[in-house]
Amino acid sequence: MKIGILGAGQLGRMLALAGYPLDFDFVFLDPATEACAAPLGEHIHAEYSDERALAEFCVSVDVATYEFENVPAHTAEFVASRIPLLPAAKALTAGQDRLSEKQMFDKLGVPVPRYMPVATREALDFAVKATGLPAVLKTRRMGYDGKGQAVLRKPEDLDAAWNRIGGQPLILEAFVPFEREISCISVRGKDGAMAFYNVVENVHRDGILRTATPRADDPMQREAEDYARRIAEHLDYVGVMAFEFFVAGGRLLANEIAPRVHNSGHWTIEGAICSQFENHLRAIAGLPLGSTALRAPCVMVNFIGDAPSNTELAAIPDLHIHHYGKTPKPLRKVGHATLLATSDARLQEQLTLLNMLVAKSES
Amino acid sequence: MKIGILGAGQLGRMLALAGYPLDFDFVFLDPATEACAAPLGEHIHAEYSDERALAEFCVSVDVATYEFENVPAHTAEFVASRIPLLPAAKALTAGQDRLSEKQMFDKLGVPVPRYMPVATREALDFAVKATGLPAVLKTRRMGYDGKGQAVLRKPEDLDAAWNRIGGQPLILEAFVPFEREISCISVRGKDGAMAFYNVVENVHRDGILRTATPRADDPMQREAEDYARRIAEHLDYVGVMAFEFFVAGGRLLANEIAPRVHNSGHWTIEGAICSQFENHLRAIAGLPLGSTALRAPCVMVNFIGDAPSNTELAAIPDLHIHHYGKTPKPLRKVGHATLLATSDARLQEQLTLLNMLVAKSES
Repeated sequence: MKIGILGAGQLGRMLALAGYPLDFDFVFLDPATEACAAPLGEHIHAEYSDERALAEFCVSVDVATYEFENVPAHTAEFVASRIPLLPAAKALTAGQDRLSEKQMFDKLGVPVPRYMPVATREALDFAVKATGLPAVLKTRRMGYDGKGQAVLRKPEDLDAAWNRIGGQPLILEAFVPFEREISCISVRGKDGAMAFYNVVENVHRDGILRTATPRADDPMQREAEDYARRIAEHLDYVGVMAFEFFVAGGRLLANEIAPRVHNSGHWTIEGAICSQFENHLRAIAGLPLGSTALRAPCVMVNFIGDAPSNTELAAIPDLHIHHYGKTPKPLRKVGHATLLATSDARLQEQLTLLNMLVAKSES
Repeated sequence: MKIGILGAGQLGRMLALAGYPLDFDFVFLDPATEACAAPLGEHIHAEYSDERALAEFCVSVDVATYEFENVPAHTAEFVASRIPLLPAAKALTAGQDRLSEKQMFDKLGVPVPRYMPVATREALDFAVKATGLPAVLKTRRMGYDGKGQAVLRKPEDLDAAWNRIGGQPLILEAFVPFEREISCISVRGKDGAMAFYNVVENVHRDGILRTATPRADDPMQREAEDYARRIAEHLDYVGVMAFEFFVAGGRLLANEIAPRVHNSGHWTIEGAICSQFENHLRAIAGLPLGSTALRAPCVMVNFIGDAPSNTELAAIPDLHIHHYGKTPKPLRKVGHATLLATSDARLQEQLTLLNMLVAKSES
């Protein structure tokens, strides 16, 4: 089976690495010159709007998916009109606009922070009255890794925020004084069967995920699964979906969904029986899903900007290196490492070593 | 780092899958048109004797290795005179001639079955007197998966065996009435550090490996490691080496070494902390070796001739599918599956299911 992937970044790369053993081949479409999945398949180097390239992509694959949530809606529709596109285009677009995403959560009974759409400078004043301060002003579209966001702490911050990201559709969200940020990685098959990985506790810095730790008995597990199921069933979702939540006052507040494999699920390559990458491929290929069970205590640490040397990393026991084949650059995700251990105490020891290496490589 | 691999079969394919996460890229040289590692790197499609192609191979990589033990000695020397070749050419040639291999075992105090070189039909009569019957007549070179072998059970078998494989250098080996066949997969770093995987119990049929089961507390573990260490140190070996033994009367008798990653070590992808493929790459790249510790009870089953469908395989819990991207053909290894379980009893249940699928696909 030949699988087409819109996007050829690290997620596409890890999908291909998981897919070859299942006898899948890969075609990527990505406008980037430095597309790190390209060595692992055929790379159609073209814009997402290039219909000739998209047509070539469609005739060369059996099923298409994406590793990038900002694939233009027109591109998704073009592909879906020719070959199966999974998850379907409506799952892609559901998460592309933060306002309609929040409205979907509301409608399905998934709790969200207070929010208001903001189209003008005047509307921003009005929205702040509704949400209170602090609050976060975000572009409705194309935001990721903290880009297109401004935190409003006091009334004087509104002008600066507006000057920076105003003039496009925005949403103001009440700032959530959260205790934790978690995500729930789920997978849904063509037959509607669902499986859920252990809830992951995420730590961000500068809006970028730094560490992700699956929790063995998280008190939020059932609630997170319930909300993920509501969304997945509503969208008739097929594939892996990530759902990010805040935990505040012991309850969940939905942040956002990503209709794809997700950075907070990278630990599943070694830490779960079947990884998020293999399960995404199983789902879109119509195969039975693999077990999402945790193998051992584990933690994933991102390499941001640059990575420690392989010589240093390989010396840490049960550490699994994942470089993405990308040129180092400030704030760019260039790789990650997953640590496994036989106990939480041992995991902490290894993590201390790893964190020292990571801090050194980023400085 | 760019790694050159002589041979582009399934072992090269699995080396590449293990190597991309370490930031390695791959160039394969292989005369086969259907080379199943080719989609995972650059494929120089040429004979091993083609010096122009070999020169191109050498300038394009940082270090070379091989996944095929019958690389011609001249090819290995050509490469080694230009770039680092690991394991070194002498490790390659040591296992290519069954006679000199046995003599090396003898010299290093590693027990071997009785053997005699056989050059003529008359020498065969003489050799049978030394080894007794039954015995196995083998070509000294180019044998694998039971090819180039004839079993002699009674005096009348000699003529037929000679007619079939005579006229080239042969070796006669006493047939070992073994209780078990085991292998010891070891890895040795550039600094001389060694690590050993759990001893693997192997079951062959028609001369082809069918199942490989790592043993948690095999009574032969220490002795096998001792012999593997003697050979590896003698050859100043760098990389993964497989050593096959017969267990007869509670002692080990050396069968042969393979200077490469080995089919009886495929279970290490999921069943060990660091796989034989990653450890081979770590060794030749000069990185610290990874842990060879067993993660859980596991077993590997080969797909010979054809494979069960993914739909059937994916339904078995904790089963890991590995297709090699090869066209089905009688007696061809087209893939394998590794089963992991939380207990030996559960492993047996899953294995029963898998064996039923495998029997059906081979019939």
